[in-house]
Amino acid sequence: MTTETERKANVGVVGLAAMGASLARNLAHHGNRVAVYNRTYQRTETFMKEHGDEGVLIPSQTVKEFVESLSVPRTAIIMVKAGAPTDQVINELAEYMEQGDIIVDGGNAYFEDTIRREKAMAERGIHFVGMGVSGGEEGALNGPSMMPGGSDWSWETLKPILESIAAKAPDGTPCVAHIGPNGAGHFVKMVHNGIEYADMQLIAESYDLMRRGLGMDPQQIGDVFAAWNKTELDSYLVEITAEVLRKRDEKTGKPIVDMIVDHAGMKGTGTWTVQTALSLAVPVTGIAEAVFARGLSDQTALREQAQKENFKAPEAALHMDGAEAETFIELIREALYASKIVAYAQGFNEIAQAGQKYGWDIDMAQVARIWRAGCIIRAKFLNRISDAFESGSADISLLFAPYFKEALENCEEAWRKVIATATMHGIPTPVFSSSLAYFDGLRSKRLPAALIQGQRDLFGAHTYQRVDEPGAFHTLWAEPDQKEIKISD
Amino acid sequence: MTTETERKANVGVVGLAAMGASLARNLAHHGNRVAVYNRTYQRTETFMKEHGDEGVLIPSQTVKEFVESLSVPRTAIIMVKAGAPTDQVINELAEYMEQGDIIVDGGNAYFEDTIRREKAMAERGIHFVGMGVSGGEEGALNGPSMMPGGSDWSWETLKPILESIAAKAPDGTPCVAHIGPNGAGHFVKMVHNGIEYADMQLIAESYDLMRRGLGMDPQQIGDVFAAWNKTELDSYLVEITAEVLRKRDEKTGKPIVDMIVDHAGMKGTGTWTVQTALSLAVPVTGIAEAVFARGLSDQTALREQAQKENFKAPEAALHMDGAEAETFIELIREALYASKIVAYAQGFNEIAQAGQKYGWDIDMAQVARIWRAGCIIRAKFLNRISDAFESGSADISLLFAPYFKEALENCEEAWRKVIATATMHGIPTPVFSSSLAYFDGLRSKRLPAALIQGQRDLFGAHTYQRVDEPGAFHTLWAEPDQKEIKISD
Repeated sequence: MTTETERKANVGVVGLAAMGASLARNLAHHGNRVAVYNRTYQRTETFMKEHGDEGVLIPSQTVKEFVESLSVPRTAIIMVKAGAPTDQVINELAEYMEQGDIIVDGGNAYFEDTIRREKAMAERGIHFVGMGVSGGEEGALNGPSMMPGGSDWSWETLKPILESIAAKAPDGTPCVAHIGPNGAGHFVKMVHNGIEYADMQLIAESYDLMRRGLGMDPQQIGDVFAAWNKTELDSYLVEITAEVLRKRDEKTGKPIVDMIVDHAGMKGTGTWTVQTALSLAVPVTGIAEAVFARGLSDQTALREQAQKENFKAPEAALHMDGAEAETFIELIREALYASKIVAYAQGFNEIAQAGQKYGWDIDMAQVARIWRAGCIIRAKFLNRISDAFESGSADISLLFAPYFKEALENCEEAWRKVIATATMHGIPTPVFSSSLAYFDGLRSKRLPAALIQGQRDLFGAHTYQRVDEPGAFHTLWAEPDQKEIKISD
Repeated sequence: MTTETERKANVGVVGLAAMGASLARNLAHHGNRVAVYNRTYQRTETFMKEHGDEGVLIPSQTVKEFVESLSVPRTAIIMVKAGAPTDQVINELAEYMEQGDIIVDGGNAYFEDTIRREKAMAERGIHFVGMGVSGGEEGALNGPSMMPGGSDWSWETLKPILESIAAKAPDGTPCVAHIGPNGAGHFVKMVHNGIEYADMQLIAESYDLMRRGLGMDPQQIGDVFAAWNKTELDSYLVEITAEVLRKRDEKTGKPIVDMIVDHAGMKGTGTWTVQTALSLAVPVTGIAEAVFARGLSDQTALREQAQKENFKAPEAALHMDGAEAETFIELIREALYASKIVAYAQGFNEIAQAGQKYGWDIDMAQVARIWRAGCIIRAKFLNRISDAFESGSADISLLFAPYFKEALENCEEAWRKVIATATMHGIPTPVFSSSLAYFDGLRSKRLPAALIQGQRDLFGAHTYQRVDEPGAFHTLWAEPDQKEIKISD
């Protein structure tokens, strides 16, 4: 005979689509007693039939029953579609929950929605936790990287549960940490995805240079990526790039990449990352160009008409022989690495700026640590990033940490050569280029922004500051003597 | 003795700060009977004392009195701060207005606020018109370019009033037109400002190349811009660039541009343009990079630390002699022209996409026509743009109109050389580069987006399309035989 509490579940999952089902199974595999509920009960039945014997899984037909099957503090993880469906489930759960209970939203909610929801639930005494979950279906099943926000109190309860199912970094640390209050977790997950966009586009630009510039076939390029995966570029995305490029289409025998329509899709987190960075006035040029590159690839009418126009263009082929080509491949690798460092630096700057604005005290080193396994941008160099933040040398920008500064300086010449070559040969490298332009802008002693300030003062009386005296100044441009006046101190 | 109607005003202005006062005077100068009101009456008194004799100006102390001083249909133009102050004034006016009256918001409101306000006023039978006004204080006084949205009915009343005060294009056409319903006017004004950001940054990059690359002084560069103003680049912004660069600081005798702090400010419309384009999935790479360049210029801590780091960098100087330098200056001019065409093409694409989404039937040729005078981006080549749209050849993109296609092809080699040179010499040209990358992406037969789709299918089961068969496909990447399955038709 068991006691009431022993029969109850220590955690529940709402929503048994791909991600929810995988997460519930992962929880059950690690000794949790898992309550499960899905809006249509049929899916719950199928889930129980297929996976009911993988651990303690307790199905419910109604939300009320589901909540009653949870031990106190009741902890429910929602894995449903972002937007209205999420709000609906939250409200249903809250109806049966009590003060001190915990609702975790594991979907890709926009962080401002999470802030709003956390506030509404807090008024009812319920702890609402917006949690970023990365790693896709496979990660959810075998170990995701998780970024929960919410109250410190909720983290006490969630920590052992989430650590049990998280991916483990090479040093054994679980890839989950309490990011900060309310929307902090979803914010960090959003930026994670933005960096993912930049990283993928950088890989795509590198591929394009080898394909169109060096005339290599996908198999050969796949081999290059496999080799790069043994360098500083060691990462999940580089690894799967090799896999995709080496895969042959079973129907035609051709490389699968040549059979795939070259229109990239997107689900919104990249777009949010850039829109939010714009509101925070943080330049995230690499991520923005990556989002735009996907957008451009999907503009069918524009691209079809451009083909009809048959624009004059330089020859893409670089006409390089064996050794020369080998050297150029190494230049591309260095350009990719330098650009990638810039993309991460910009992403971390966005997190830091949001932390200030929203009052989150985010531990950047910890963010880098929990990205080391389980998530899509997992990469060896995240160890170096976490070291950099831990040492304090990346406080203003990752680019100033000695390890990355040295890397940039080592790659700089290659970076320039690759972009200049791509430019002359008409192979677009928007993220390579914008990353270098950011770096060159950043290190410029004087920027032509002074001219922009002069123009703005002339046409809009927006005033300017002087280099030699504090205050705001305005030149009376329309007057004959164009006198300067001081507007404020 | 005059009748009641004759004594009343045919139009009113609320808000007598710089823009409102100028607009009210402009209206009075052109035979309108203008009611004026300001929240603090003292400002109204000062205004009347200084300008009361410039025409028929009828001051009021209260909103009620102001509304009563207007003839039917009452037409009030609001020139107050965007946001809450605008909402407050709208509500105060609506309290005393009747069905059929017209409220015009001439501030820089975000178009979604305008849509919301138009809807709320329409429910009370009041016509709300969001109107973009460009040209700054000077334009407001002597002839702005105006972009009103709102109902057809309101345009009947507004047309003669606005045409009386609008800037006149060289062919005499007033630079005002009814853009479309509800938020269309403010949307078009927003994109106008976005293009202005790109245009200014392109000029700044050109200046920087001459300054740092060719070692020219501001006066010499001012002369170059003055010469360029006699080419296809003939425009207000190029004209004032020459003026700013030639101006000497009265205190030091140095060029004023060298005495201005190189941190560019911004007020939000550029940011909105990019954020909205992202929501519409329209790439506006040039505008985005221009907004980010301003943002970067203003990141004090980042820039100061970068100076301390003293990064290894190539020499900015190009070491070009007289004739060679002359040639390079012409290359810069062509690169600027090509990039500018791309910025306009992207901006017009954004307007077209919004038109579809929001059900506005925007006449692009007309938009180009009313930008020919009065506004900040006024330029000779807007004639060519309006011709292109009129002929239908710019329907998909301005880049496909024969005149601009030829221009791009003529400038293409210069464009590439300038960017490649800037890249090798460490002079950042983010908008030059991103504009060319957009052009190269656009005209690419195959983009590496196919690889991105392969990656997305591998880690997220996002599916892909095949080039040889309709439907959505997914490869079972984790299975030993990596079979492809068809997910949907």
